[in-house]
Amino acid sequence: MISRNTVVAAYEVLVGEGYLVNRARSGFRVNQATQAFRNIPVRRRATQEKRLEPRVPIAPVPFRPTQPDVSLFPLQIWNRHRNRVLKRGASLLHYQSRFSIGLDELRRNVADYLRDSRGVRCQWNEVAITNGSQQALFLLAHLMLRPSEPVYMEDPGYSGASKAWRNAGATIVPAPIDAEGITLPVGQPLHAKLIYVTPSHQFPLGVCMSLARRLALLKAAREAGAWIVEDDYDAEFRYTSTPQPSLQSLDDQRRVIYMGSFSKTLFPGLRIGYVVLPPSLVEGFTALKSIADDYSPLIDQATLAAFLESGGFHAHLRRCRKHYAERQLFFLDLVQQRGLPLTFPVTGHGMNLAGLLPDDVEDRSVSLRLQQVGLDVPALSRYRVASGQPGLLFGLAAFSTAEIARGVSTMHQALS
Amino acid sequence: MISRNTVVAAYEVLVGEGYLVNRARSGFRVNQATQAFRNIPVRRRATQEKRLEPRVPIAPVPFRPTQPDVSLFPLQIWNRHRNRVLKRGASLLHYQSRFSIGLDELRRNVADYLRDSRGVRCQWNEVAITNGSQQALFLLAHLMLRPSEPVYMEDPGYSGASKAWRNAGATIVPAPIDAEGITLPVGQPLHAKLIYVTPSHQFPLGVCMSLARRLALLKAAREAGAWIVEDDYDAEFRYTSTPQPSLQSLDDQRRVIYMGSFSKTLFPGLRIGYVVLPPSLVEGFTALKSIADDYSPLIDQATLAAFLESGGFHAHLRRCRKHYAERQLFFLDLVQQRGLPLTFPVTGHGMNLAGLLPDDVEDRSVSLRLQQVGLDVPALSRYRVASGQPGLLFGLAAFSTAEIARGVSTMHQALS
Repeated sequence: MISRNTVVAAYEVLVGEGYLVNRARSGFRVNQATQAFRNIPVRRRATQEKRLEPRVPIAPVPFRPTQPDVSLFPLQIWNRHRNRVLKRGASLLHYQSRFSIGLDELRRNVADYLRDSRGVRCQWNEVAITNGSQQALFLLAHLMLRPSEPVYMEDPGYSGASKAWRNAGATIVPAPIDAEGITLPVGQPLHAKLIYVTPSHQFPLGVCMSLARRLALLKAAREAGAWIVEDDYDAEFRYTSTPQPSLQSLDDQRRVIYMGSFSKTLFPGLRIGYVVLPPSLVEGFTALKSIADDYSPLIDQATLAAFLESGGFHAHLRRCRKHYAERQLFFLDLVQQRGLPLTFPVTGHGMNLAGLLPDDVEDRSVSLRLQQVGLDVPALSRYRVASGQPGLLFGLAAFSTAEIARGVSTMHQALS
Repeated sequence: MISRNTVVAAYEVLVGEGYLVNRARSGFRVNQATQAFRNIPVRRRATQEKRLEPRVPIAPVPFRPTQPDVSLFPLQIWNRHRNRVLKRGASLLHYQSRFSIGLDELRRNVADYLRDSRGVRCQWNEVAITNGSQQALFLLAHLMLRPSEPVYMEDPGYSGASKAWRNAGATIVPAPIDAEGITLPVGQPLHAKLIYVTPSHQFPLGVCMSLARRLALLKAAREAGAWIVEDDYDAEFRYTSTPQPSLQSLDDQRRVIYMGSFSKTLFPGLRIGYVVLPPSLVEGFTALKSIADDYSPLIDQATLAAFLESGGFHAHLRRCRKHYAERQLFFLDLVQQRGLPLTFPVTGHGMNLAGLLPDDVEDRSVSLRLQQVGLDVPALSRYRVASGQPGLLFGLAAFSTAEIARGVSTMHQALS
């Protein structure tokens, strides 16, 4: 008896070059297709491709906002957790489509963290893991919004969110920010399907929403039948006071969808975010996430679950808080010493500081001038729909005191 | 002079407990918010949560289709590449939103691979990296389809694709498969905005589309002004003949959007897919990917780029091909020896085999019976819109010959 392996070997010789084709159970025939395919010119790296030089990832320059200091990240400890979860077996490598909104162990640890540190009310199975907060915004937009429905947005506000709402066809209704947070319509009901807010540390102005405003917002949303999306941006970095619990913790109607990410607390390239869904949205969100990309990478999820479990996350946050607080104070001192024409109404928390310029200054020209001397300091008007006080947004977390000193010095020269 | 650090320390004592709040530049005041928040009951793991036991990822059981053998994956070599790319510096950890459709070095290496092995015509900057092929399908659906536009789909076909088209509101037009691949309307023009095909190894029947059908399809698409999405599913695993170049390589009009993934050639948990876009779609796809999830995780992308560059990918593919070919032959021999009532019209390539049952058998009942004895063998009718010959879909790649032998034996007992 000739073994099938021998037949395979013969196949390889006979049809390996593509002259013959094996039609199932009907024997061999000449492979005309192959001949035709042979005449197709296969393009190698074309000469014109030389013009498209590949770019390499680079580090941010001062004072690019919302960048964490990734050099503080304990990569070795992380990798140790990663090796340990990989040793558990190969199941993390397999298809695991039933974990479309995240590994259960990670969802459970994230739920514990959010309950303990942010007062979030949730069961672990209401937590969904997403590819950073941007995917949470995108999926929520497509789940909750129909074309032309109104979305109430902070102005100035986060463009990543408004892009997501607009992609679902929604109409953005900008609402000014005052010292207590997002303003609500006076003397008229709120007309909105969804309200997007950053209550802990408003992006980009930094205001922490007052309790009175939080309660008023919840009441207005209830009356309007609107959802609230609470993006708990930058909540982990408070230096001079205890963090306020989340808006979601005040809501006994589960009208608030809470979201956040590990991009700033760990590192952005990880691309892991989370959203805490009201029970009524869990099924729809899960189905949509399945269609959108099946499920998110599992090895990083399991590593993160172990990192949270070990307490490594809290230790890392404490370390970051200390450095970021020092950097903020160092910057404020320097700016004051140099007499730069900037005021900082909100300090003491966050990775960024909004610095206001005198009323008659065009912030975009200032930002452009700073760009020309190698600094990356966006104008506040870049985040605004309506006009408002000119200013600049400074990210301080990612930069050493030496870099901050050089940056302030360069800025001083450029603006004199 | 009292240093700011001392002031911070004082802050921490005074407001650390939350009794005072620091209003920027207006001094301290009693923090009423904190008092109110204190009254909120923080829910710990509730008793009812005990019912929601977290699940753990498990390995597939025979003969679950489309599963690669992840134990063949050279994890140690992969991790060595990973360590090396991490040593290049921290830039992979930073925000890198300008790489929304992938790291350039990976796009370049994927382009080289696709040109060399699949004859794909492209510049590297037309390659987009996605979270597995599912995200490519989803983004293409939302980029290219308007509500109620018709999408021509293979029947039986891949439900992950039809879900994506439907999510964008499209209407699915099922087209039967014959021995040459997807059938086209006879004597009437093709009415479709998009045609989705798996020409290398039709899912789930395994047919390789003939050259004649490929040319007819390209002509019909041209006349209809339709896009073709070529999902080059399973193209890498041919055992008895050289792979046929892609459909995209025959298309000089850039009407074919080529897509694939590393889920089966490396491992599914990696979640890295790719799509080769016609130049006219690059900008729109990039913008949509940014809104959908900013960008994909970077460390894995850089690791994969290095793995491709090193030749490790080709070595791994060769090894898989050898094992998968053996497993397919081993299975076919056993089924024949056992005299199971199954015929396999298409063999010699792919990770799966479609086995046809006699006409009068209900394949769903057979699948259910096999499920009851611990086997995971979906009925072909599960993938069908119209009725057709009953059958089962067997995945063989992920299972050892011992597992296959046990599986066939169990199946023989269950079906006798």
